[in-house]
Order: sequence, then structure tokens, then C-alpha cells
Amino acid sequence: MKVTFPKNRLEAFTDGVLAIVITIMVLEMEMPHHAEHFTDLKPVLPVFLSYALSFVYLGIYWYNHHHMLHATREVTGGILWANLLLLFCLSLIPFVTGWMGANHFSAAPMALYGVVLLFSSLAYWNLQTRIVCVHGNESVLAKAVGRDVKGKLSLVLYAAAIGLAFVVPWTAGAIFVGVALMWLVPDRRIERALTGTETDANEQR
Amino acid sequence: MKVTFPKNRLEAFTDGVLAIVITIMVLEMEMPHHAEHFTDLKPVLPVFLSYALSFVYLGIYWYNHHHMLHATREVTGGILWANLLLLFCLSLIPFVTGWMGANHFSAAPMALYGVVLLFSSLAYWNLQTRIVCVHGNESVLAKAVGRDVKGKLSLVLYAAAIGLAFVVPWTAGAIFVGVALMWLVPDRRIERALTGTETDANEQR
Amino acid sequence: MKVTFPKNRLEAFTDGVLAIVITIMVLEMEMPHHAEHFTDLKPVLPVFLSYALSFVYLGIYWYNHHHMLHATREVTGGILWANLLLLFCLSLIPFVTGWMGANHFSAAPMALYGVVLLFSSLAYWNLQTRIVCVHGNESVLAKAVGRDVKGKLSLVLYAAAIGLAFVVPWTAGAIFVGVALMWLVPDRRIERALTGTETDANEQR
Amino acid sequence: MKVTFPKNRLEAFTDGVLAIVITIMVLEMEMPHHAEHFTDLKPVLPVFLSYALSFVYLGIYWYNHHHMLHATREVTGGILWANLLLLFCLSLIPFVTGWMGANHFSAAPMALYGVVLLFSSLAYWNLQTRIVCVHGNESVLAKAVGRDVKGKLSLVLYAAAIGLAFVVPWTAGAIFVGVALMWLVPDRRIERALTGTETDANEQR
Repeated sequence: MKVTFPKNRLEAFTDGVLAIVITIMVLEMEMPHHAEHFTDLKPVLPVFLSYALSFVYLGIYWYNHHHMLHATREVTGGILWANLLLLFCLSLIPFVTGWMGANHFSAAPMALYGVVLLFSSLAYWNLQTRIVCVHGNESVLAKAVGRDVKGKLSLVLYAAAIGLAFVVPWTAGAIFVGVALMWLVPDRRIERALTGTETDANEQR
Repeated sequence: MKVTFPKNRLEAFTDGVLAIVITIMVLEMEMPHHAEHFTDLKPVLPVFLSYALSFVYLGIYWYNHHHMLHATREVTGGILWANLLLLFCLSLIPFVTGWMGANHFSAAPMALYGVVLLFSSLAYWNLQTRIVCVHGNESVLAKAVGRDVKGKLSLVLYAAAIGLAFVVPWTAGAIFVGVALMWLVPDRRIERALTGTETDANEQR
Repeated sequence: MKVTFPKNRLEAFTDGVLAIVITIMVLEMEMPHHAEHFTDLKPVLPVFLSYALSFVYLGIYWYNHHHMLHATREVTGGILWANLLLLFCLSLIPFVTGWMGANHFSAAPMALYGVVLLFSSLAYWNLQTRIVCVHGNESVLAKAVGRDVKGKLSLVLYAAAIGLAFVVPWTAGAIFVGVALMWLVPDRRIERALTGTETDANEQR
Repeated sequence: MKVTFPKNRLEAFTDGVLAIVITIMVLEMEMPHHAEHFTDLKPVLPVFLSYALSFVYLGIYWYNHHHMLHATREVTGGILWANLLLLFCLSLIPFVTGWMGANHFSAAPMALYGVVLLFSSLAYWNLQTRIVCVHGNESVLAKAVGRDVKGKLSLVLYAAAIGLAFVVPWTAGAIFVGVALMWLVPDRRIERALTGTETDANEQR
């Protein structure tokens, strides 16, 4: 028999880590000292742009995690660990964001950014699979995830960006922005699947 | 049909980010090393004053967010994203606070501080509008917000401060302090509107 | 009629800020680079000792805040602001801790540490008074707080330490340690008062 | 009569501190400036490896704390303080992690890392003992903990690692990795004990 835990603490810990990861990135934007004109901010601009991009990515992860957990009823030990693995990958984003911003989007930092996004995606997919496993193929979540075309497409695009970073660096950046936009378009899958069962879910809670 | 989510995780994530943003500003106050007299703290004073001002602003945002969410019953995907946009704007406050403090309130940093406050205000207004939309014009919240004179006045004052910063820098500072004081005076609107419906709200919760 | 709010978000925000304040102090302990022997840690030792002292103080505040809120039933706007003021004072502790540690407990940093502790105490007393006001003199909390001898004694001792810091610095340090120990001894007042009403409180919750 | 508190705030504060401790370690990974090739990341590699190891240790502590609190029904003042002591020990991990990483795993940093792990273990054991005391020897938790072979074995191994660090440094590292792996293997004790009483626990909550 599987042992399950209340999911509230998993959510609280994840929210805590994501809130910190999303916020400490702003510390990478080093304030120019004794520099009081707007032109002094020029070196900060690429760091700001990387920050904005990473904020959007972390926002997307928080948003999707929020949706997925909303449809989750049981949390097992394996799910807790899969979630920690995801948090570890996401916690590396501030470092690669800072490196990318400080080096004006050159090849190696762009590629490493892609690697971290790729591993984060795999960790998310791993977590999703474990949750679906626990809930069964007939669960709301399984139906909502479906074939997960967006998730698989992202993996391919990240891999492409890693390779392209060494050829034409800016194309990697364009792919990162493109994937973010693809996810920003509201994902109706889980919402649609939940609609039919919302009343039911509320009753069980 | 719209899908709604429990609002507790939105509150928890917002509280987490605001708690970090409000606290990491203190890291900008760089400790004078090998400097053991009170006079050595002189360069820290403007940083401390900017910190105090920004703490008050973030406190006001947390306080108003707390009130607004208290009157909110349904959270949609659009509201989650509008909230993330607000958090992004507010997360820039530590950077501009540090820049303003380190350059002794000179023109450009003052203006940029105003720009971040302006965008934060717009993001808050956007969030408020989306929440009111979901709840309808006859909701407690819609009545509480009313014509939102304070919100609109703040926007005008921030815009004025941005322009004035380049002419007479200290007037911009005076406006920032003034707007903060305006908001510190307890906002009875939502409280008044809630009073009549409090019992009702408690029953529904 | 007074408007009240659920206290859970006040607790969550306070816990968030205190958790960050208590943790970022560790960042003041600057790691010696290219220094691989225990003797290289000597300059870190005073920083570590200040950290430990401040950790205990923040722990005491969290502990007492936890007790006080446990006995609180209603949260008003005024209480939210009094709480923010307390958090502002406590957020200055990492700065003064770092300054005290980096200057080997010399006069001015010791006195400033005392000033921050004094203001934190006053802010706590302000919060306590407002909460008692809302609940009435016959409430569990009012009886639990009683004449608050410990609180008043702390204020006197902090004031004494600020003065003594300029005469015999180490006596100020001894007072800070002494006050911390005085609070570490379990405060049975609220616990005792709660004991008789615990069942009652649980029923009402 | 013992006074007990609701455990949710203890969990929230612990989650907050652990989330920060686990995340600020990433700030120790200093980004190489004006260094845009993968080879420039070479000095960051040992810091990354220490980070990964400490992330796993903190993850294990969070996971076990989560389990233990799940089986806890009553929180006393003594438990709150024992928990704060554990958090203090764990908050030192980022410092020793950074020192170990920056000095390429040399003797003294390895030994100090072991000392912090040893004290964290003792603090956890202290917390566990106090919780078991409150709940009685016949409680689910007491049975789940049992003789706590893993906990005792860890203490012995940490002590061995501290000594070995001065003889053959890499053996200490091997022990740290080994102990982490030992804990990563799912701990079925509490899960098994809970299985039989899960329904019971849910009813009481």
C-alpha cells in the first residue's frame, strides 16, 4: 500500500524556493556606483533583459506547477523527491542568467542557459509522469496532460538552441523567447479537463 | 465557462516574493569595514532613507493586496499572470532603491525610481481591473474600489515626479514621500464596503 | 464597526520576513578565499558570534510573536501596520550584526545594535498594545501579558547597554547576552493563561 | 498541564528557512565576469559539486522533517526551540559549502563541513526525541523511529569523516556522499508505521 502525504507543505516549500529563485536574480543586476546618468545603466541592460526572460520562465513553471498540483490528490515520497530535483534545476537559473547577461549573450553562456532549461524541462516531465502514475491513466490529470505536445516540442527546441548557440548565438536567444511565448499563451488543456470535474473536486476537498 | 483556482497559493507566493523583495533591500546597505565610528555611517544614511521609503511602499502594496484578495472569491489564469506582472515590477524596487541611495538622490536615479513606481501602479491597476471583471460590477470589490481616485492621482503624481526629477530633484523625492503618506492614511473604502458583508463572507468561506 | 481580517496571511508574511532576516545574516559571514586552514577562520569568529546572538534574538521574537498571534482572534488594519513596523526594525538586525561582527565589538557598533534592539522592543510593545486593545482587558491575551515586567525590564537594560557601550564596551555585550537568556527561559505567562482556555479556544477556531 | 500550539506555523517557518538556506547557496557560485568560454567555468565546478551535495542533504532534512511533523500531533514550546536549534545548524551549511568549494575540498574545510553535519544530526535527534517524549512511547512516531539505526550510524560516520579529512581528505568526501545515498534510499519506517494508522490520523485531524 502506498503512503500519501498532505500536499500543502509540498506547495508551500515549492512556492518558497521559487519565490526566492525568482527574486535573487535581481541581485545580479549590480548597481553602478558613482554613476548617476542613464547612460551608466547601459551595462545593466543585458542583465535586465536576461532577468526579464528568466522571470517569465520561472513564472511559467510556477503557473504550470500550480495547475498540476491543483489536479493532484495524492503526494508520495517519490513525488516529493521528483519535486526537489525540479527545484534543483530551477535554482541554477539565476547563475546562468547572470552569466548570460554579464557576457552579452555570447555562445557558451547561451548554450549553458539552454542546458539548464532542458534539464528543468526533463525534471518537470519526470514529476508530471510520477504524479500521473500515482493517479492512474483515467485521472483528470492524465487526460489533461494528454500527449503533452508542448512539453515535447520544448525539449526539441532547447536542444536545437544549444547547438545553434555556437553557430549563430542570437538564434538561440530567439528560440528561448519563442518557447516562452508559446507557454504564455494560456494552456487550456488542464483548465478544460478540470472544468467538468471542478464541482466534484471541491466536494472531495 | 471560466476555471477558477483556490486563492491561497496565489497569496502564499505573493507573500513570499514580497517578503524577499522587502528584505533583500537591506543587503544594499553595505556595512563599512574597519570603520567603527558613527561618522563612518554617513555614506550609509541616504541608502537607509531610500530603504525606509521603499519599505513603506512595499508595505502599502502588501497591505492593499491583502485587502483586495480578502474580497476576492475567484482566481483565474489571467489573474495569476497579472499578479506575476505586478511582482516583476515590484522586484525592481531594490535595484532602483540602491541606485538612488548610492547616488545621493540625483536626477536620473530619482526619475527611474518614479518609472518603477509608475509601472508598479499600472500593474496593480491591471490586476485590480481583472479581479473586478471576474467578480462583476455589483460585487463588494467593485463597490469598494469605486472610482479609485487615489490610484489615478498616484499615477499623475508619479509622472510629474519623473519630469521634475530633471529640474529640481528634491521635489521628486517630496512627491514620493507625499504619495506614500497619502496611502498610509487608512483606506476606509474597502473596509467600509466589507463591513456590511463581512458576516456574509464568513459564511461563504 | 471595526473590520477584521483573517490572521493567517499576517502570520505567513511575518514568517516569511523573519525566515529571510534570520537567514541572510549568514551571508555576512564572508568566506575566506584561498585560505584553507582553521586559523584562516579567525576573522570570521566575531561575525559568527554576532550571528549566533542575533539568531537567538530573532528566534525569541518569532517565538513570542507565535504565542501572541495564537491568542489573537481579530486582526485590524492598525495591527497589520504595527506588525510591518516591527518587521522594519527587525530587518535592520542583519546590518548592525554585520557591523558589530566586522569591527570586533567596538563602541559605536555595540551602541547601534542596542538602538535597533530598543526600537524593535518598542515596536513589539506597540503591536502587543494594539492587539490587547482590540481584544479588551478581560481577554486571555490581556491577562497573559499582565504587567509585562520582562518587556519593561528589557527596555531599561537596552538603554543601559547603549550608554555603557561607550564606557566599557564588553558590558553592553554582556547585557545583550543576559537579556537573551532572560527571554530564553520559557515564558509561562501566556502558556499558563492559555491552559485554562485552550479547550475553549479550540472550540471557537 | 502542557500547552500545545497548532503545528502549521512551525512547518511554515521551517519551510521558509529551509527554502532560503537551500537557495542562497547558489549565490556562492560566483559568476566569472568577462569570461565567456566553458573553460572559464572550471573554478566554479567544485563550488557546483559542493552545492549539489548540500542541496541533497538539505532536501533529506526537509523530507524527513516533513515526515516527522506529519506524524506529530502536539507542538510544545520546547519543540519550537529544538526546531530553531536545528535551523541554526542547517543555516551554517551554505557557509561551509562555500568554503569547501572555494578551497577544492582541502582538509580543514572538509572537516568543518563534517562538524556542521554532525551538529545538525544531533539537533535533529534532539528534536525527534522531544517530539517522541510528548507523544509517548506507544505513539505512531515512537514506533516509526524505533531504534533509529540510520541516525546513529550517520553520527559515527560524520565523526569518522572529520578525523579522516586530515589524513586522506577525499575519503571524508566519499563518506559524505555515502551517507547522503544511505538516506536517499526511501525510509520505509515511518511510511510503514503510518500505513496502518493513516485512516485513524485523518479522522483525528
